[in-house]
Amino acid sequence: MTDKTENSIDHVDTVQSIDRRKFLNTAATAGVAGTFLSMGLTACKQGTTPAVTGNAAPAAAAAEAGHSPHVAPGELDSYYGLWSGGHTGDVRVLGLPSGREIHRIPVFNPDALVGWGVTNESKAVMGTKADGSLKYHVADTHHVHGSYKDGTYDGKYAWVNDKINCRIARMRLDVFVCDKITEIPNIQGFHGIFPDKRDPVDEKINYTTRVFCGSEFSAPLPNDGHDMEDPTKYRSLFTCVDSESMEVRWQALIDGNCDLVATSYDGKLAATNQYNTEGGVIYKDMMSAEKDACVFFNIARIEQAVKDGKFKTYGDSKVPVVDGTLAANKDPKTALIARVPVPKNPHGVNASPDGKYFICAGKLSPTATVIELAQVLKWFDGEVADIAAAIVAEVELGLGPLHTAFDGRGNAYTTIFLDSNVVKWNIESAIKYYKGDKTAKYVVDRIDVQYQPGHLNASMSETKDADGKWLAVGCKFSKDRYLPVGPLHPENEQLIDISGDKMKLVADHPVRPEPHDFIIVKRDIIKPRQVYNMDEFPNAVKDPAESGVTRNGNKVTVKITSMAPAFQLTDFKVKVGDEVTIILTNHDKVEDLTHGFAIEKYNINFIVNPQETKSVTFKAEKAGVYWCYCSHFCHALHLEMRSRMIVEK
Amino acid sequence: MTDKTENSIDHVDTVQSIDRRKFLNTAATAGVAGTFLSMGLTACKQGTTPAVTGNAAPAAAAAEAGHSPHVAPGELDSYYGLWSGGHTGDVRVLGLPSGREIHRIPVFNPDALVGWGVTNESKAVMGTKADGSLKYHVADTHHVHGSYKDGTYDGKYAWVNDKINCRIARMRLDVFVCDKITEIPNIQGFHGIFPDKRDPVDEKINYTTRVFCGSEFSAPLPNDGHDMEDPTKYRSLFTCVDSESMEVRWQALIDGNCDLVATSYDGKLAATNQYNTEGGVIYKDMMSAEKDACVFFNIARIEQAVKDGKFKTYGDSKVPVVDGTLAANKDPKTALIARVPVPKNPHGVNASPDGKYFICAGKLSPTATVIELAQVLKWFDGEVADIAAAIVAEVELGLGPLHTAFDGRGNAYTTIFLDSNVVKWNIESAIKYYKGDKTAKYVVDRIDVQYQPGHLNASMSETKDADGKWLAVGCKFSKDRYLPVGPLHPENEQLIDISGDKMKLVADHPVRPEPHDFIIVKRDIIKPRQVYNMDEFPNAVKDPAESGVTRNGNKVTVKITSMAPAFQLTDFKVKVGDEVTIILTNHDKVEDLTHGFAIEKYNINFIVNPQETKSVTFKAEKAGVYWCYCSHFCHALHLEMRSRMIVEK
Repeated sequence: MTDKTENSIDHVDTVQSIDRRKFLNTAATAGVAGTFLSMGLTACKQGTTPAVTGNAAPAAAAAEAGHSPHVAPGELDSYYGLWSGGHTGDVRVLGLPSGREIHRIPVFNPDALVGWGVTNESKAVMGTKADGSLKYHVADTHHVHGSYKDGTYDGKYAWVNDKINCRIARMRLDVFVCDKITEIPNIQGFHGIFPDKRDPVDEKINYTTRVFCGSEFSAPLPNDGHDMEDPTKYRSLFTCVDSESMEVRWQALIDGNCDLVATSYDGKLAATNQYNTEGGVIYKDMMSAEKDACVFFNIARIEQAVKDGKFKTYGDSKVPVVDGTLAANKDPKTALIARVPVPKNPHGVNASPDGKYFICAGKLSPTATVIELAQVLKWFDGEVADIAAAIVAEVELGLGPLHTAFDGRGNAYTTIFLDSNVVKWNIESAIKYYKGDKTAKYVVDRIDVQYQPGHLNASMSETKDADGKWLAVGCKFSKDRYLPVGPLHPENEQLIDISGDKMKLVADHPVRPEPHDFIIVKRDIIKPRQVYNMDEFPNAVKDPAESGVTRNGNKVTVKITSMAPAFQLTDFKVKVGDEVTIILTNHDKVEDLTHGFAIEKYNINFIVNPQETKSVTFKAEKAGVYWCYCSHFCHALHLEMRSRMIVEK
Repeated sequence: MTDKTENSIDHVDTVQSIDRRKFLNTAATAGVAGTFLSMGLTACKQGTTPAVTGNAAPAAAAAEAGHSPHVAPGELDSYYGLWSGGHTGDVRVLGLPSGREIHRIPVFNPDALVGWGVTNESKAVMGTKADGSLKYHVADTHHVHGSYKDGTYDGKYAWVNDKINCRIARMRLDVFVCDKITEIPNIQGFHGIFPDKRDPVDEKINYTTRVFCGSEFSAPLPNDGHDMEDPTKYRSLFTCVDSESMEVRWQALIDGNCDLVATSYDGKLAATNQYNTEGGVIYKDMMSAEKDACVFFNIARIEQAVKDGKFKTYGDSKVPVVDGTLAANKDPKTALIARVPVPKNPHGVNASPDGKYFICAGKLSPTATVIELAQVLKWFDGEVADIAAAIVAEVELGLGPLHTAFDGRGNAYTTIFLDSNVVKWNIESAIKYYKGDKTAKYVVDRIDVQYQPGHLNASMSETKDADGKWLAVGCKFSKDRYLPVGPLHPENEQLIDISGDKMKLVADHPVRPEPHDFIIVKRDIIKPRQVYNMDEFPNAVKDPAESGVTRNGNKVTVKITSMAPAFQLTDFKVKVGDEVTIILTNHDKVEDLTHGFAIEKYNINFIVNPQETKSVTFKAEKAGVYWCYCSHFCHALHLEMRSRMIVEK
């Protein structure tokens, strides 16, 4: 399985039936692992010889593109891209189709430009230890999704998760700032998130009210040092967070490891695909069962169970935990969950924009499974005996299918990791083919990508307004696609024009590892404000005449205002040992006229945007004169814009 | 001076004589400040109506560009751009002309992807407090420059400075990693840096051996709490750092505030332009003198003075400090410095690639001053009585000239901040004009930029190989050039084709604030390695069989290896209260096959590139099972690649 011919499939473009490679459901466990190990590496090596993967073809494709990704100077992009920032712990805002990064929203990790993790306001959002220092500095962000109204984005919020320290954050899209972070209890390996699209009970509530969260890793519950060496007692949970309060509403015990999450357009169902339902703790054991699952949560029933007191709590957590395991939910009429069997170790689950299907990609199986939501609801109602009836198609797509996007014209686009391509396939044709019509050609097109694609997403793909214009593909390896920059390579986010029958690769965009996932939103949906209102900040220094120093014991408050090119105060005195709080209000009203405030040798920097107020608190540890300067270019006399902190012994 | 007509100078393109605006050398101090205050704001407001600044023209120019900035998928850029990362504290590596960010090198601030500030190796470079925590988390990086050999880049090192906490860092360009950081004593407001281009004494040494550093802010010396309220006793210093050891060689007391730094091609001279020679502490006082200076340092004489013991030291610092003030250096034949008067509050100083001139931009004067280096050397030799004889031109360019780049064809390109344009002017014509030939048309071309440009640089401009192909312009305000993203705007790095007679704007690239400065290097100069040699790491776990846990009291060492898709150890045990050191060696050899190592809820993440070893040390504070997972996508079974840390009570 590791010879060159096997991996060189750029010339099997329209082949949809690749039975000879359907080995993954039948091979012995160790054999599978060994084969995949070799294949992963072979695929990597393959990339160092681009000719093998048909490098010339995509380059040619760019020239004949229907849409150009090139945005002339002074022109605006047509879409916002909200990109998970990976380990940088932020959310990157791109313009598309240009691929230009317009902004980064600091979220889980400190950011020395805006003073995220430096100012008191940001530390309150991020969370601190008892001594006032930040609780966490690192994150591994994965998934960004936006809030919905009427089945499409409303431009109000976006959410992103952190896998390392199990946090979910919300960003306000009016000012592109993170305003809430919640650490989820009882879990590890927090991977997938998805907001609901309307309320499961009250049909009048046609907007997002909850965000669902899947966690991968199982651990003792509570994880306080008991049962550590008996993995059969490890548990994993699925979590519901309130989209407004950002408090955890409930959790559900599940079998196996959650991966991605999807929600239905009617609000009734959330789902997560699960791998390692066998509960292995080393990778070989995680692949022993032939089938894993796509688990559907009946939200209304779960919330009724919580109301009825049918839950437990664990350790210090007050969060109600219902039992969503298979063993506890055998009767469809009372079940909180429905477990649809899919080939083992599936990866992505995505909702089609017509509201009918969830599509589970196989990862270790070369297939995608199409699950009809109406059938799942019927199973919960007792109208369908076997949940497997919800599977309306399971078709082969290529080696290592991971994630699926949609064009709103009935086609799905799935990343094929090991084959390094994207396959465009027609859902209804796949259903026909699965039903027995072997003349149904469900694979419509296939395009090589460079290399090993993970997530992909199309413009508005996660809404009922999927418009089928652009497809971005997050390739995990870039190898030879950019100038070499040492051992750490960028990842490669490729942009594909999907407006026509054939996919056309039009641009490579390098990104710092590793973004994982992203959404592409029509620009008219997001309506940001560019100047704050001073009244939004309770601690604003509204009049420069209020600036000055006040002392309460060893606690000193310094009120300062900024207006280009000067701070009011030009100097201020404190004493060694003081706890100093500086409150700075920017009185400039002009859009884009942001000031910075840095204190030499005191490790402090933050910015204040027009009409914004921020504060920092620190201990004056060193005597001497310490210049404070405007660290964000503001004016011709920017270098001269300073204040002096005089720290007396 | 604030009416619209005055600022709408897009239609005075070829006007080089703008005498009516030569107000800045004659206006009263307060008046100047007031005028500039208004102008800064007016310029900002103006930007919100793009039509006024000739927005249409640049867009049209893109279509007729001689060179295209568009790099097709799979094609490589022609140049590396090394960009100061601003407050992110890193160095950004761009490909040009595409403007794509290929890499960020973490330097002064923590980076949760590579584990910069997390791993023991990076903490040793960054500097820690006695308790092992990082000394600094924020930075304000300004200037990136590369190492030289024979007057051009040798691709070995680059340096960058931090203005807040007064640090200089070196990056290895073979692996694109920061390997040394030095905190400079006795200074505040560390602004400009520049490496020398050959040795001032030994002509055979034709490569970089020193980096010169200018500091802006004056403070008591030492800054320990004395003389804090008598600014006349504040001092500022110029610093020389050894390029190999990165130790501070010497410092020189100076008058006023250093801004940018330049070095001569013969190695003999370094210079800094100075503002606030009057020693004001508020912005109005900083503009009271009519003239400030470009100060030249005679490196050989300074180093001889140090050898001769003619220096002092201050406070705890052992660094020899020579006296480089004007008062101590009146006799040219023994002077350590030569002070060339230039109009007040100058900003940039740049060396022309023919080696002949330093060009000082006026900022508050609409002029650039051309200083002939041969004349400065003659002054030091006593052959020229008046140092002002070194001024061979002082010509008007526009309102707020800041920085100058070169095309290697005798032309200079200067950013004009208030006018928001770039002027292309011919140096020899300017010299003729200044000598009295008023027919000499030194202004060759002028182009609007969007908006308020600071630094600019052309391809290879800072070397004798300046090739005149591309000019990047760092515009401080982007205003309406990108999709709105809330109050904080990106800055706008514009790319201009300078290969022809007329400048042509070809692309806008948004950047996170604020990059300040950058260099553009031909791609064949930098030759990175993409896989480490395991022997480079003394603590490498060279054989997976060596992996395991060893204990010495409560200090526990855990040796682990990685090879996709598994860690060897799959689990390890420690006890609450242990000081745990994890050493991880990546045994994968395939280019781009990087693994991550994240520990759930323990706030740890770092990566290991192919054949690399890294370590982390932390306290095991919480009992329980904590999954460690590969956080950098590596393989189809990446999600299954884990280890378990079992922390016993």
